[in-house]
Amino acid sequence: MSQLIQPRTLKGFRDYLPESMIPREVLMDTARRVYRRYGFSPIDTPALEYLEILTGKGSEETDRQLYQFTDHGGRSVGLRFDLTVPLARFAAQHISQLGTPFKRYHIASVWRGESPQAGRYREFVQCDFDTIGTESVVADIECALVINELLLEIGIEDFTLRINNRQILNGLLDRCNLSEQSVTVLRILDKLEKIGQAGCLNELQAAGISSQQAHEILQFADVKGSVDQILGKLAPLVKGSERGEAGLERIHQLSSALDATNIPPHRYRLDVSIARGLDYYTGVIFETTLNQLPGIGSICSGGRYDNLAGVYTKQHLPGIGASLGLDRLLTALESLGVLTPVSTPAPVMIAYFDRQRLHDYLLLAQLIRSHGIGVELFPEPKKLGAQLKYAAARGFRAAIIAGERELAAGTCQVKNLTTESSTEYQYQDPQGLEKLIVGLQETIGPK
Amino acid sequence: MSQLIQPRTLKGFRDYLPESMIPREVLMDTARRVYRRYGFSPIDTPALEYLEILTGKGSEETDRQLYQFTDHGGRSVGLRFDLTVPLARFAAQHISQLGTPFKRYHIASVWRGESPQAGRYREFVQCDFDTIGTESVVADIECALVINELLLEIGIEDFTLRINNRQILNGLLDRCNLSEQSVTVLRILDKLEKIGQAGCLNELQAAGISSQQAHEILQFADVKGSVDQILGKLAPLVKGSERGEAGLERIHQLSSALDATNIPPHRYRLDVSIARGLDYYTGVIFETTLNQLPGIGSICSGGRYDNLAGVYTKQHLPGIGASLGLDRLLTALESLGVLTPVSTPAPVMIAYFDRQRLHDYLLLAQLIRSHGIGVELFPEPKKLGAQLKYAAARGFRAAIIAGERELAAGTCQVKNLTTESSTEYQYQDPQGLEKLIVGLQETIGPK
Repeated sequence: MSQLIQPRTLKGFRDYLPESMIPREVLMDTARRVYRRYGFSPIDTPALEYLEILTGKGSEETDRQLYQFTDHGGRSVGLRFDLTVPLARFAAQHISQLGTPFKRYHIASVWRGESPQAGRYREFVQCDFDTIGTESVVADIECALVINELLLEIGIEDFTLRINNRQILNGLLDRCNLSEQSVTVLRILDKLEKIGQAGCLNELQAAGISSQQAHEILQFADVKGSVDQILGKLAPLVKGSERGEAGLERIHQLSSALDATNIPPHRYRLDVSIARGLDYYTGVIFETTLNQLPGIGSICSGGRYDNLAGVYTKQHLPGIGASLGLDRLLTALESLGVLTPVSTPAPVMIAYFDRQRLHDYLLLAQLIRSHGIGVELFPEPKKLGAQLKYAAARGFRAAIIAGERELAAGTCQVKNLTTESSTEYQYQDPQGLEKLIVGLQETIGPK
Repeated sequence: MSQLIQPRTLKGFRDYLPESMIPREVLMDTARRVYRRYGFSPIDTPALEYLEILTGKGSEETDRQLYQFTDHGGRSVGLRFDLTVPLARFAAQHISQLGTPFKRYHIASVWRGESPQAGRYREFVQCDFDTIGTESVVADIECALVINELLLEIGIEDFTLRINNRQILNGLLDRCNLSEQSVTVLRILDKLEKIGQAGCLNELQAAGISSQQAHEILQFADVKGSVDQILGKLAPLVKGSERGEAGLERIHQLSSALDATNIPPHRYRLDVSIARGLDYYTGVIFETTLNQLPGIGSICSGGRYDNLAGVYTKQHLPGIGASLGLDRLLTALESLGVLTPVSTPAPVMIAYFDRQRLHDYLLLAQLIRSHGIGVELFPEPKKLGAQLKYAAARGFRAAIIAGERELAAGTCQVKNLTTESSTEYQYQDPQGLEKLIVGLQETIGPK
């Protein structure tokens, strides 16, 4: 091999170095932990699917972005572009074995050949959870509780869960005899934040909706206040529409359950203008925004849908779920300065500089690991300065330093790499070891 | 959509239902935990790479099995077939930023279009860990310690770590003036277990090796005893060969470190016949076999290599690492009957049958979860029998049953779903709650 091949990644793809992969794994671990705690089970599906399974299930855009090719057996195949289409195929295929309600989470990569932009990649991870096979409002409530607990456990407290129910707007449109135009109205309302009231008014009228009705719709979308206040104001506007009243009732059940489970009232609000896609969701809708970074959009979104897998099975499978936007959230945590950049998942490094004492270093490392603290033993007996430089660059929080004299006496120095202060410990008797462990725990801090 | 699309997976691919995905995630979690504890950092690389990065780096077989196609931008691309080639590309690209030693783990899917056989799939997960940039024997020792700890933590104790060092055989061949034929000899020796001594003897002679030399090689490969005994017998056979002597010395350092760190002597043995691929490994080699299932082959293998990324960079990057064979191990755990089939990661289900008391159920679930116990609240107020049938089918270990009367009195029944016995708890005062938590913990058992 005299000619070197240039090492590079494809456009729109990226490597995750430890500094970005460590917090990414923390987020995925947290999602798994919270989902499991609520009884969501993990599943996995193949990255590659028959092309016919994938096409026509998203939008024209996702079809165009699909990575597709012909495999060794002449089959047309594609890489999944989301986890919802594979879930629909999976549910249709296995639901008789799985039974309902079926609660699953799925954390996996998806691929879209879209034009790379800042913060948009052609490969990204989705963290979905869904409950299939029940229309119960309990599943709506649980979805909100999971989103809330997930963000709190990630370390975010200053967020707002925006809720809505598509049936409410449908109820208003029923009353205005505009049911046929619901898609048009939703598409325009979805732009409310971008183009404002006046812009929406123009577009609604351009779509053939009367000035009076357009005003009514905008007034409706602009209702503000506590959930109960909004519900009170909307009740007369949807009165008589079965689905409108049902939508209000489900929102009421949801918000009273959130109150009962001690979710603070400022944490969530009813926002009847959010629609999240035009055709997919049919009931409750969730969006989650960071109060300090509203501009990045929703970091955890979802809602209720009527029939998950109608393309693949005649079995009616309603469901509800949401998805954590892992990469968007990571970007947000970075800009909030919440992440401490580290390149090692082990907080402690043992310097190695007496070759004759290798077994002592190995035993000391083993001892500390058995107390649940991660330790890296530097593999070469280099000069201490070089090893400490390595430790600082990697983000270790403590270095353990011991040479011939210390090891012979059963002692070691713990150097706090933030404050640069050192403390000596006697580690070979049980009491001394306990002090060492406590000292290390204090030095490395929580987690 | 009147015409249904048949829901199916591609040949050689499979869905993981909760029952198989739950233990799979436990294994991956365990691998991550152990790797991190030793200071290995997570990385990730794209599933898709430039084709030129992937071809010619494995074998002719992997080239043939490569999933390759032309992407939207007209680039020739392929899906990675292992995690070693991407690591080599990654290291060549980023090593100046990463610095050495660089310790990484990578748990991810790889794809090979091979003929599906029993237990072989076209998509599977690899769990690799490697230390790049050091030739120190400390990294060899650590690799063995990680394999040992990983298997113990998975719950396997009855295994054997087989070690070897390629330099030892090279030393013998040096002495026999057969260095040129080392690849041939290795290829034949690798078949020793399959074709036996006589078969190897024939093949060695057919390859032009004299009868005396063939006997010497086979005698060498057949040396048995403790590591020290084997080293004693081999010493005269490689005497004078620099690499042969170095190989013995490194094995000695490795085994004495394993003894010093209290790895029981029956847990590992030196087996000079194992070669693990012909060209790749250059130093120590590891294989791990389950004593009760030797036939399934090695479940965790690896070794030391001279130069990871020579195709992509002039920088010399030696390394050592190993890979846990996740799917092979899962199959093994299944046949050993170690796995309890469950389809829920939460051990407790709360039955829901009084709609008026939803908030009480939600609060009780929240209370139990806050004590670290996973709880699923059944979402619909169905008959108790149907809910308990669901709980049994999913593998829940306890069901909490409380109706109007119990909830009004602040009590609930815990039904042990294995023994079918029930106990009543008063959960609204702190002492009662503590008893409930202890009772649940006893019912669900460890983990």
